[in-house]
Amino acid sequence: MSEDFLKVALAAKEAAAELAPLPRAPKDAALRVIADALVSRAAEIVAANALDVERAREGGLSEYMIDRLRLDVARVEAVAEAVRQVADLPDPVGEVIRGNTLPNGLELRQLRVPLGVIGIIYEGRPNVTVDAAALCLKSGNATLLRGSSSAYESNTVLVRIMQDALAGTEVPAGAVQLVPGLTRDSVKELMRARGLVDVLIPRGGASLINSVVEESTVPVIETGVGNCHVYVDADADQDLAVEILLNSKVQRPSVCNAAETFLVHAAVADTFVPRALAALAAEGVTVHGDDRIAAYGDVVPAGEEDFSVEYLSLDIAAAVVDSLEDAVAHIRKYGSGHTDAIVTRSVSASRRFVALVDSAAVAVNASTRFTDGGEFGFGAEIGISTQKLHARGPMGLPELTSTKWVYTGEGHLRTGAGTVIASCAAGAE
Amino acid sequence: MSEDFLKVALAAKEAAAELAPLPRAPKDAALRVIADALVSRAAEIVAANALDVERAREGGLSEYMIDRLRLDVARVEAVAEAVRQVADLPDPVGEVIRGNTLPNGLELRQLRVPLGVIGIIYEGRPNVTVDAAALCLKSGNATLLRGSSSAYESNTVLVRIMQDALAGTEVPAGAVQLVPGLTRDSVKELMRARGLVDVLIPRGGASLINSVVEESTVPVIETGVGNCHVYVDADADQDLAVEILLNSKVQRPSVCNAAETFLVHAAVADTFVPRALAALAAEGVTVHGDDRIAAYGDVVPAGEEDFSVEYLSLDIAAAVVDSLEDAVAHIRKYGSGHTDAIVTRSVSASRRFVALVDSAAVAVNASTRFTDGGEFGFGAEIGISTQKLHARGPMGLPELTSTKWVYTGEGHLRTGAGTVIASCAAGAE
Repeated sequence: MSEDFLKVALAAKEAAAELAPLPRAPKDAALRVIADALVSRAAEIVAANALDVERAREGGLSEYMIDRLRLDVARVEAVAEAVRQVADLPDPVGEVIRGNTLPNGLELRQLRVPLGVIGIIYEGRPNVTVDAAALCLKSGNATLLRGSSSAYESNTVLVRIMQDALAGTEVPAGAVQLVPGLTRDSVKELMRARGLVDVLIPRGGASLINSVVEESTVPVIETGVGNCHVYVDADADQDLAVEILLNSKVQRPSVCNAAETFLVHAAVADTFVPRALAALAAEGVTVHGDDRIAAYGDVVPAGEEDFSVEYLSLDIAAAVVDSLEDAVAHIRKYGSGHTDAIVTRSVSASRRFVALVDSAAVAVNASTRFTDGGEFGFGAEIGISTQKLHARGPMGLPELTSTKWVYTGEGHLRTGAGTVIASCAAGAE
Repeated sequence: MSEDFLKVALAAKEAAAELAPLPRAPKDAALRVIADALVSRAAEIVAANALDVERAREGGLSEYMIDRLRLDVARVEAVAEAVRQVADLPDPVGEVIRGNTLPNGLELRQLRVPLGVIGIIYEGRPNVTVDAAALCLKSGNATLLRGSSSAYESNTVLVRIMQDALAGTEVPAGAVQLVPGLTRDSVKELMRARGLVDVLIPRGGASLINSVVEESTVPVIETGVGNCHVYVDADADQDLAVEILLNSKVQRPSVCNAAETFLVHAAVADTFVPRALAALAAEGVTVHGDDRIAAYGDVVPAGEEDFSVEYLSLDIAAAVVDSLEDAVAHIRKYGSGHTDAIVTRSVSASRRFVALVDSAAVAVNASTRFTDGGEFGFGAEIGISTQKLHARGPMGLPELTSTKWVYTGEGHLRTGAGTVIASCAAGAE
């Protein structure tokens, strides 16, 4: 581990210990100081960002990517406003999740506590640097930020401004750290920093996330890869099905909760597929269909990869299935466990679909686009977990916490082995 | 991956999909059939176990280890009774954790769902084979069991009996699988079975757990290593402190929630340490003390390793500290994040200790031995998590579940980007 990395990681760990016990007020105050500092020093940020944009141009980055990278004063003000919104959210730390008095009189409480040090690995957009730091700070966590090298100048200034701002508050300035270095090595160091980093959250494309999951010895929360399905059941209201399909695909094609495949029950294929193809074509969507879809119109032939891929574009795969169970089997085989929707009038069909589809979110007669921390009312979101441990689906502030059991007695002693089943009391096994 | 392993892993995954949607009744019925089968076929189990015990004898295993390995008819009946107790527990699957109607009318629900396939790596005692399988089955999960090679004959028969019993029930027989092979390779295969296994729970000593944590690409829940502390504050009731210290150390020294170190505030060392040394000596406990403890009596000099080690025996490390903050610093440096206790009359001291100690459980004026699923009223426990993600502290049935978001509308479409902060909607970043 390089000295540079060890230095920031230890600083983050130390800051995390100071930050964890702080109540809400000083954390909110610190967030507002950060927001003000970002606005008052916007010129510095825009100047540094210009260097990143210039290098990106020389490097031949696409205009789309350059636009995601660019910060102007208006965008900096929007970032600052987002920080103020985080300050306005309730503090998850200290919430009593469970609590009761045990038969022996012990008062048992399960409290939310911060995770500690959260490592964030992300791409492109420098606003994530501030968003992620703010969410982690609000939930009592220190942050180790490893953004894209393409935004290094911007991120360096943004982190310096946040640290300068914190220096005047009760929150330790070390609570926000930028991982030094532009090489892949710094990502590897983050993934190997077990004991210094409590959790890693990679936010980006499938390849980034998979490499982190494979190589990290630090616990990882996978986010953001979405191969979402819309299944049109035999009992579907077809007008409604067309609208849900269109909204799921075209309302914002570039995001993880957009639909990438639609499945149609054979019983309604004759009427629904032609309507769907026409409606999608009218929105400029290219359909990659299997043979049974192709029978109804002009589509690009779909191969295996079309059902596995996350297009993030105006493309959608399509297939006809013979039953709800076949639709579920397709989703289990090709899906990413993000969000899958059924359109049906049948209570029985919706019950079966919800029970059998093993995804973070299941939508019934609604667009897949609603799987979102904002839409769910979380107020903020650090990403959408597609794994089963710890957090599944949109992650708000509570998902950035762990828990602690506290029990209070007055000299309570344990007598007898209690009613332990398969406990660690099994000889520390 | 070997064909043998792939076969059982795929069988478990298939069974998990069938088991997940089952309601409580068929799962409880299957558990009772298993319990009956264990009792009626106890002779087979005892015969197979005799082969393991014989081999262990030839291998020169200690009498203590052999006793943990041995099964007789009475112990088999106790194992069966434990399975019936699991059947009597409430089913966590389907519990609605959060739910509300969104401003747009969408009905949002967060439900508990099974994790899927749970791999358990454990040592010695064959009863864990049945305990773990029963807890996983009750929570809707399939199990891949990898027990100690020393118990292979016993585990093979126990799993066969469970599978035979399930064959006559609604629960698929494949839901309980023994990982084939006696070599370390089969452990490695389990740790590399990402996509086939949803979570790995190693139950055993620190070396086993650390190697799994280091090498596994499957998400891991660490359990069971406990270096627990009792801190005697300046404001402690000393009679009470002596009792809590003794109970924490000697009531069951071999388990993870037993105390391994006690820390005494300098202000009360003169009166408390001599009493503690006398009381511990009377119970046959060897004290490994620092210089300041040694000033009060005859102790074994304590080195760094004494403060880090989990004795699991009638030994305890001891040190004098100058403040509550120094006690916390010691616990943060040497502790395992399991359970740490403070003995004090001071509300302020207990508040600070609870806030600053970053462990799964913090006890105030109570023995560390209460950190236990049975004592907490969970009814059952698969282990005690000492990590921060997903589950922390005693793990009952709810800790063996994930969650699923379900939202139901009537053609709800999303318009506008909503109030997303740092969302995956950030260009699928």
